[in-house]
Amino acid sequence: MFKGLSAFPLTPLSGGEIEEKSFTSLIENLVDAGVDSIGALGSTGSYAYLTRKQRYLATKLAVSAAADIPVITSIGHVRAEEVLLLAEDAQKAGVSGVLLAPVSYQKLSADEVFNFYQRITSELSVPLCIYDNAATTGFEFTDELLVSLSSLPRVGSIKLGDFPADCNAASRRVENLKKRVSEGVTIGISGDTQSAAGMMAGCSVWYSVLGGVFPRYSKRLAQAALSGDINETHHLNEALEPLWTFYRHYGSLRVIASVAEILGVVPSPCLPFPLQSLTGEKRASLENILNHLNFLN
Amino acid sequence: MFKGLSAFPLTPLSGGEIEEKSFTSLIENLVDAGVDSIGALGSTGSYAYLTRKQRYLATKLAVSAAADIPVITSIGHVRAEEVLLLAEDAQKAGVSGVLLAPVSYQKLSADEVFNFYQRITSELSVPLCIYDNAATTGFEFTDELLVSLSSLPRVGSIKLGDFPADCNAASRRVENLKKRVSEGVTIGISGDTQSAAGMMAGCSVWYSVLGGVFPRYSKRLAQAALSGDINETHHLNEALEPLWTFYRHYGSLRVIASVAEILGVVPSPCLPFPLQSLTGEKRASLENILNHLNFLN
Repeated sequence: MFKGLSAFPLTPLSGGEIEEKSFTSLIENLVDAGVDSIGALGSTGSYAYLTRKQRYLATKLAVSAAADIPVITSIGHVRAEEVLLLAEDAQKAGVSGVLLAPVSYQKLSADEVFNFYQRITSELSVPLCIYDNAATTGFEFTDELLVSLSSLPRVGSIKLGDFPADCNAASRRVENLKKRVSEGVTIGISGDTQSAAGMMAGCSVWYSVLGGVFPRYSKRLAQAALSGDINETHHLNEALEPLWTFYRHYGSLRVIASVAEILGVVPSPCLPFPLQSLTGEKRASLENILNHLNFLN
Repeated sequence: MFKGLSAFPLTPLSGGEIEEKSFTSLIENLVDAGVDSIGALGSTGSYAYLTRKQRYLATKLAVSAAADIPVITSIGHVRAEEVLLLAEDAQKAGVSGVLLAPVSYQKLSADEVFNFYQRITSELSVPLCIYDNAATTGFEFTDELLVSLSSLPRVGSIKLGDFPADCNAASRRVENLKKRVSEGVTIGISGDTQSAAGMMAGCSVWYSVLGGVFPRYSKRLAQAALSGDINETHHLNEALEPLWTFYRHYGSLRVIASVAEILGVVPSPCLPFPLQSLTGEKRASLENILNHLNFLN
């Protein structure tokens, strides 16, 4: 399950409530495109901003619309007790796996993070993906810690966040991790702007924000990169550079939410307050980029 | 209310539940010492790790034990809707003011933070203190934004986080802020290691972690610093330097929790999982420091 293209859809909100119809349509689009897995309620799915009830509802909707494509859902929460309840909910809703970042308020130590994953995985029946996202959690995993965590029961994948910009350093890091993590644990890349480089460096999954809205294009890019087709990878990834520039300025969530709003596949605005999608000139120039990419058809 | 020494007690937990008796004793100690206000459920009070129900309980206990000393409680939460509910609860429990940090999962923009405070303050009946704590929220306030926010209704104080280490720069910053913020809004300092410097630079409140366990010593330090007694301030603050070194290494929460555990005024361990207080040699050397400070009597 933790391989190829894992597509992360938005959870469109309207007045603070999940817009069920457009959420289901987003999932159906991923099923039609044949993505390898669906990361419902990732950071892109605004999991941190939803109530337990809303998270259960979204997970059920996703599982039901996903047909036989595995659904992964995030169970992160600042309260460890709540993480356990969310894990229960997710399993009851029929997920194939869960995603867990060390969400915290106080900056955690490596020991605390290890104990946290140990406790949660000990009560879990489905595979877990370790979610490294220092931008949202404030916690920076060392490779040492990732290797230790990979030996915990149920750990099936590592979703890398910060990644070396230098391609030799990147390859060395991924090689080294693959050698050291427990057997069967896959190494995946997140952060769309660096994902082509991550796959070229040896990661075997793309945890993809773009894939949540444009699964077909993302699948072509993933297939090219994972099969080592350098030219096609560069070609497809270079075309996205103007979009990546937007990501770097405004964050991937605000950009992909604006994209989905422009496409009309979600209500506008669709993000949880106080997060704002782009407006005015920024939105117009984003629309131009989409037009150039032929993404508006 | 937003002046002098504002003492922030721990919320001691046992098995994930609030240890009511020791929490109440901590509050009573602050009342006996005559602090200017009590910051129940600050970061030191682990507000982010408690349920809404637990936060209501702790606030009620604090208000009831605080006699006529004003109680301020934190209403921060990643969900804006929950912040409004927490504000309602806090007011129902009888607080004199609330504290609000822009808690977030996604890094917020300045516009988003402004809209957030605007929405929350518009539904508030008690004064609010803006809580600048980049280490826990990931958001860095500019002075520009703090000045804008100070004009919102109900804003009564600003609790500064990151602070210039250079004392001239610090004085200039505080002077400048005092000149520009709306009338009646006080400027306070937090981060115990820099608080003496903050008060010497012109801040008129010390939002104090140390004050939650050692209110008498903290009050002497606050009084010396706020009255411009440089020698006494240096004397009292220098003595604490070994403690501040621990703060810098392990974070103020882990250190003050360990201190309270050593003193026996809270259960051990008292922090929410997975946060850990200090153990082994670190704890022994902390105990030595407390002994030298005559803090164990």
